[in-house]
Amino acid sequence: MMMMLATGQRLTTTVLRRAARPAGLLAAATGTQARRQLGEYAGKDIQCKAAVAWEPNKPVSVETVTVAPPKAGEVRLKVVANALCHTDVYTLNGQDPEGKFPSILGHEAGCIVESVGEGVTSVKPGDRVIPCYTPECGECLFCESPKTNLCPTIRSTQGQGVMPDGTSRFSINGEPIYHFMGTSTFSEYTVVAEISCAKIDQQAPLDVMCLFGCGISTGLGAVFNTCKVEAGSTVAVWGVGAVGLAVVQAAKMSGAKRIFAIDTNNDKFDFARRMGATDCINPHDHEDPIQQVLIQETKWGIDYTFDCTGNTDCMRAALESSHRGWGKSCVIGVAAAGHEISTRPFQLVTGRWWGGTAFGGYKSRSEVPKLVESSMKGELPIEQYITHRFQGVEQINDAIEALHSGDCLRAVVTY
Amino acid sequence: MMMMLATGQRLTTTVLRRAARPAGLLAAATGTQARRQLGEYAGKDIQCKAAVAWEPNKPVSVETVTVAPPKAGEVRLKVVANALCHTDVYTLNGQDPEGKFPSILGHEAGCIVESVGEGVTSVKPGDRVIPCYTPECGECLFCESPKTNLCPTIRSTQGQGVMPDGTSRFSINGEPIYHFMGTSTFSEYTVVAEISCAKIDQQAPLDVMCLFGCGISTGLGAVFNTCKVEAGSTVAVWGVGAVGLAVVQAAKMSGAKRIFAIDTNNDKFDFARRMGATDCINPHDHEDPIQQVLIQETKWGIDYTFDCTGNTDCMRAALESSHRGWGKSCVIGVAAAGHEISTRPFQLVTGRWWGGTAFGGYKSRSEVPKLVESSMKGELPIEQYITHRFQGVEQINDAIEALHSGDCLRAVVTY
Repeated sequence: MMMMLATGQRLTTTVLRRAARPAGLLAAATGTQARRQLGEYAGKDIQCKAAVAWEPNKPVSVETVTVAPPKAGEVRLKVVANALCHTDVYTLNGQDPEGKFPSILGHEAGCIVESVGEGVTSVKPGDRVIPCYTPECGECLFCESPKTNLCPTIRSTQGQGVMPDGTSRFSINGEPIYHFMGTSTFSEYTVVAEISCAKIDQQAPLDVMCLFGCGISTGLGAVFNTCKVEAGSTVAVWGVGAVGLAVVQAAKMSGAKRIFAIDTNNDKFDFARRMGATDCINPHDHEDPIQQVLIQETKWGIDYTFDCTGNTDCMRAALESSHRGWGKSCVIGVAAAGHEISTRPFQLVTGRWWGGTAFGGYKSRSEVPKLVESSMKGELPIEQYITHRFQGVEQINDAIEALHSGDCLRAVVTY
Repeated sequence: MMMMLATGQRLTTTVLRRAARPAGLLAAATGTQARRQLGEYAGKDIQCKAAVAWEPNKPVSVETVTVAPPKAGEVRLKVVANALCHTDVYTLNGQDPEGKFPSILGHEAGCIVESVGEGVTSVKPGDRVIPCYTPECGECLFCESPKTNLCPTIRSTQGQGVMPDGTSRFSINGEPIYHFMGTSTFSEYTVVAEISCAKIDQQAPLDVMCLFGCGISTGLGAVFNTCKVEAGSTVAVWGVGAVGLAVVQAAKMSGAKRIFAIDTNNDKFDFARRMGATDCINPHDHEDPIQQVLIQETKWGIDYTFDCTGNTDCMRAALESSHRGWGKSCVIGVAAAGHEISTRPFQLVTGRWWGGTAFGGYKSRSEVPKLVESSMKGELPIEQYITHRFQGVEQINDAIEALHSGDCLRAVVTY
C-alpha cells in the first residue's frame, strides 16, 4: 500500500487520530511476526522479516532473519515505522567506504521495546522509543559536557557494524548479518544498546515521531543548539530537502527576519516559502558565484548559514556568504569520501566561524523526548515532511525509489 | 644607541621609573623636531624625520618629510616609541600584494597628541594615545555589536594608503607619500583618524605600552575575547614569537591546565616555558604529523588551538588537533597571498569550530586603555616581550634586522 501525499499537506487530523490509538499501529502491522505479544519471545530468538543489503548498488532484499535476544545492556525493539534517509541510500550505493555488507540498514524509526537484556533499567517492554545513532551514556567526558552530544562510548563497534560485545544479533541460517549505525531499523525487530534508546511519550504516534531519529532533529538542532540563531537574524540554507527545510522551520521559530533558501531545483521553493523562506535563490540563475550574489544582496553577509548538500563547494559558499565580523557557518551535509573544504584564511580572520553539527547537537536520550513532547503539543509540527507512506518491509525498495524521485521529503514505511 | 636585553628579562624597575617621569621621554627624544613644544605648530606643516619605504625589498630610508596639519576628524601625533612588527616587514618585503609605495610603515606605537583637527573631541593635545589600525567609530553596525571589533568605517581609504578624505598628510618636496594601516608610525609625527586613537593613562610609559598597538593585544585577545578560554582548559599554540607568547601568557592567566607551545626552533622553548607553557614540541622531532602526535598525547585533542605562524599547513594542524566535540581553533597569523586552508568537513561535523581573530577582538578605543591600566597595575606584565631597544628613526633598519635575527621578540625604537 502506497499513499502519496501532496508535498506539504498538513496531516494534523490523521496524526491526532493516530496519537489517540497507540495500540492501533501494532494491530495494523502486517509483518509475519507483528502480532506476537510483547515479551512472548523474551530470551529467545525471533524470526521476522528484514530488508537485507547484500551488496552495494543492489536493491535490498526482504529475508527472514533471526534476531537474537538482547545481551546485557541491550534492548530488542519492535520497529513500528521507519523513515528513509539519504544516509541509508548513500551506504546502499556503496558511497560510504566504511559500509559493511551484508547488513540491515535503517536509522530513523519509531519502536516499541520488546524485551530488555540484563541490567537494563531505563526502558521496559512496551515503552515507545526512538533508537538514536548518537547514543548518550550519560557518564563519559562528552555526555558530561554541555558543549557536545557526541558520546563515543560505542562508537568503534557501531562503526564496525556490530554490537558493543563485538558480535551481531542478526543472522540468516547462522551466518551473521551486520548492524548499521547502531540501529538497523529496516527490520521488524532489531537490537540496540540501551544507551541508544530515547524513551518517548507513551502516546506518541510512532509513524510521525520516527522523523526525530535523524534528519529533522539534525536540521532543527543545527539552528537551536549548534548556532543558537537569535531573533532578528538572517539565515541561509543550501539544499532544501527535509533537513534544509527543518533549518528553515527552526530559523522561522527562532524569529529570523530573513531566510534564504538556496537550491538548484526550483520545484523546492514553493514548499520552502511555505515553511518560512523569504528569499529563494537558484545559483544557476546567476552568473556570479552565489556567495557574491548574497554579499551584494545583504551588504555584509548572512548571520547564520547552513550547508545541507554535502557538496564541499556549497560548504565554501556558505562560509563565504556569512557575515563579516560574526557569521557562523554550519556544515550539516555529509561530504563524499576524500572531499575537502577550503577557503582563504582571511575569511576567518575577518570574523567568520566555520563549524558543523551531528544530530543537531541533541543529546539523544535527554532531548529527543522533549522534541516529541513539543511536537505532540503542536509547537513543533513535523508531519508536513512526510510526503510518502508505505506499508510493510517489502516496500522499502519502493520507499528508496520515492526518496530518489525529487518530490519526496520523507517516505515513512510502517511494518 | 642599541640596547639588547636578555630574552625575558623583567624590566619592571625601568618601567616604573619611566612611568614616573612622563615628560622624560619627550625630553630624551633625539629627532630634529622632537623638542618642539606641543601645539606650537598647530594648523601648520611640521617637518620631521621619517623612515620612508620607497620600494619593496629595500631598506627604509630616513628622510625629512612634511606632515600636514590634521583635517576635520583627524589627529596629529608625536610618535614617542614604535615597536617593530612582522606585518611591517611583510609589507616592506613586497609580500603584501596591496602594499603601496612610497609609504611610511609602522603600526605599533605610543604617541602624544600634538594637535587636533576640526570637530575632534575625544582627545586633546598632550593626551597619550595608542594609534590603532582597527578603529572604533562607535556608531556603525559592527561597533554596536558585542560580537566584533571590526569597524569598517575607514577601511577602504586605509587600505589605499590615504586618509578618509582620499589624500595623504605626508609629502616630500610636494610629492605625496602613502600612509600605512591608518597609523604610519615610522615617523616622528603622523596623522591618524580620531576614531583610530585609543586614549590611555596619562602616566603610561609609552615605550612599553606601544606593544598594545598590535601583536600582544592580538595574542591576548584571541584567548580572552575570541575563544574565551576557561580555567582548566588545554591550549596549544603554533609559533612562539611575541604573539604566540601572548597566547601562552593569556592562557596561563585564564587558568589553562596544560599549554602546548609548538615551534620548529627549539631556542624558543625556554622562554615559552617561563611564560607558562607546560609542553614544548618541535614537529621536526616527530615522524608523524603534529596533529597525530597531539591527539595521541591528549586522546581527544586540545580544547583551544591557535595559529600564530601564517602557515596554512599549521592552521590545518591546529584545527585537526583541536578537541572532538568542542575544540575551537583560531587563526591569528596572516597567510601569504593566495594560500588557502583546507580540511575534511568531518573535522567540523565532529564538533570543531574554525575561526580567526583580528586585533584579538579588542574594540580599540574602548579596550586598549583597559589593557594599559591592567599592565600599569602589574596584572598584565608585557615588558618581558621587549628584547631589543633602539633610539632614533635612523635605527629603524637596525630594528628590522634585529626582528629577523630569531632571538628578538619585540624591538622598540624610541624617537
